[in-house]
Amino acid sequence: MTPEFNLIQKFFTPKQTQADLGIGDDAALIRVTEGHQLAISVDMLVAGTHFLHDCSPYLIGWKSLAVNISDMAAMGAQPKWATLSLALPEINEAWLAEFSRGFFACADAYKVDLIGGDTTRGPLTVNVTIMGETPHGKALKRSGAHIGDEIWVSGPLGEAALALAAMQGRVKLTEKELDTCRQALEQPQPRVALGLKLRDIATSAIDISDGLLADLGHILETSGVGADIHFNLIPRSEIVGHHLHENQMQVENQVQTMILAGGDDYELGFTAPANRHDEISSLSEQLALPLACIGTITSGRNLLVRDANEAILNINETGYDHFA
Amino acid sequence: MTPEFNLIQKFFTPKQTQADLGIGDDAALIRVTEGHQLAISVDMLVAGTHFLHDCSPYLIGWKSLAVNISDMAAMGAQPKWATLSLALPEINEAWLAEFSRGFFACADAYKVDLIGGDTTRGPLTVNVTIMGETPHGKALKRSGAHIGDEIWVSGPLGEAALALAAMQGRVKLTEKELDTCRQALEQPQPRVALGLKLRDIATSAIDISDGLLADLGHILETSGVGADIHFNLIPRSEIVGHHLHENQMQVENQVQTMILAGGDDYELGFTAPANRHDEISSLSEQLALPLACIGTITSGRNLLVRDANEAILNINETGYDHFA
Repeated sequence: MTPEFNLIQKFFTPKQTQADLGIGDDAALIRVTEGHQLAISVDMLVAGTHFLHDCSPYLIGWKSLAVNISDMAAMGAQPKWATLSLALPEINEAWLAEFSRGFFACADAYKVDLIGGDTTRGPLTVNVTIMGETPHGKALKRSGAHIGDEIWVSGPLGEAALALAAMQGRVKLTEKELDTCRQALEQPQPRVALGLKLRDIATSAIDISDGLLADLGHILETSGVGADIHFNLIPRSEIVGHHLHENQMQVENQVQTMILAGGDDYELGFTAPANRHDEISSLSEQLALPLACIGTITSGRNLLVRDANEAILNINETGYDHFA
Repeated sequence: MTPEFNLIQKFFTPKQTQADLGIGDDAALIRVTEGHQLAISVDMLVAGTHFLHDCSPYLIGWKSLAVNISDMAAMGAQPKWATLSLALPEINEAWLAEFSRGFFACADAYKVDLIGGDTTRGPLTVNVTIMGETPHGKALKRSGAHIGDEIWVSGPLGEAALALAAMQGRVKLTEKELDTCRQALEQPQPRVALGLKLRDIATSAIDISDGLLADLGHILETSGVGADIHFNLIPRSEIVGHHLHENQMQVENQVQTMILAGGDDYELGFTAPANRHDEISSLSEQLALPLACIGTITSGRNLLVRDANEAILNINETGYDHFA
């Protein structure tokens, strides 16, 4: 057996539960439940771009799967299967053991089976393809927002961006605050349960990975509509709220940008008819997850953000660009 | 729109024909034909490991999809959908245009739809996930070889390895020879039509990507059997045969290794009951593709390679290791 084979066998052989044929052949084989569509998404994470070179391999393992599961949540799909490609500068068994532990912790938490993979020598890069199921015609697309729909966000937003800013020395947090915010940045909890519940309620949905404004912008663009939202209604944690109200204009602007455009939140943004408002509020209680109605879909083509005085904020940064 | 979005729209927006929802949402949506399993495989290609940094982007595009399609061929699956992740050091529109042209040339040749993707900044890395269909229970697995089965190889083998050796200055080829061999190395033609025909004939199959001995070894290991093959029966092109018979022992050994363990051939190795021999020979004519019976499956646990005098060759190198 080649070392590559040994690696896969040693660190990435899961117990199969949802595949007809898993790792170890030219391809995996799965059966899609009758009456269902298969949802497929892919994300590539590169060291230095998506995580720091010295980031804990456990957290890289968790996050590389979690960000993909978040795409399933945004489609209202039940995530079921994943493949993993891993480029590594060298075989480092301690690193692999921790990466694999983090990857499978997330896989187990969300009942996802690893069914295929590829390992190779190269600059540290992780690519995950996720597959899930939705009943025919029930997937939550970006294109379904209607004029008059309410705009909702699961919360809180901004903690991941605040953690990154603190780690880069742009803001100061207490050790306890940093711990909490790092958890949001490094170990996101994709909102699968919410996505499944929204199948029959929401008209459109997206996961907030590049920042609220950028991601809501994708809904507006594909749906051909505009939006009018209130900054103060956007859910934020106590820590983010606290730093927003420090009496320093520079920090305030920075934190405002984190909430609106920080990225890496992995919450869901979605639209729904106004007559489903109470149902969504109950859902929030049922899932113990803050769900905030932050505005409405308009017939315009702009995304307007208002402050407490209904004045329109001047927004420049609109999202994370992987080539910025 | 972010530059990343522009990139995908500009270079990777195909005409969808086989997906319910393609590029541009959180996930793609496909429907698997009733009574079929979905076959999924993934391969990651890294600059410097799988191709040279100055390799033509057209050929990187072709090959990154072709090696994945080859896995579908080896499963007897009809390739249908693919996702593409691309890490690039910088936005280079000329490079992207050529890469995209090569990728879609292969996609069109094999009727594969690009349904999702991710582009990011990072060291040049291409990851493709391929998906295809097989009727329930008809997939060609590595584990089905039986004692007494004949071992077949589609050919010729060794040209890709010969090209690489020439490009690295280890052997000398004429310009015309190099052109032919480079074609095999850089623009492989996966054997999908053969794989589909073998669904009801072969007991096991694999694609020869890491070298005949290594890949046949996977069949033997998962099937729990041995093999006895004849070196002289392995199909090779005129060029490879010519250099094998140069009166230089060193070159002869090198070329022998290329045939047995060169890798990057993307032909199929498969096993079938002896009573299907004539059927497979007709298939060879029908597909205009050399198919050679090179030996038989044995009850041993070894892979024996014999020379023209029935003597057992002493084989050291058994395949390409991505971490070598």
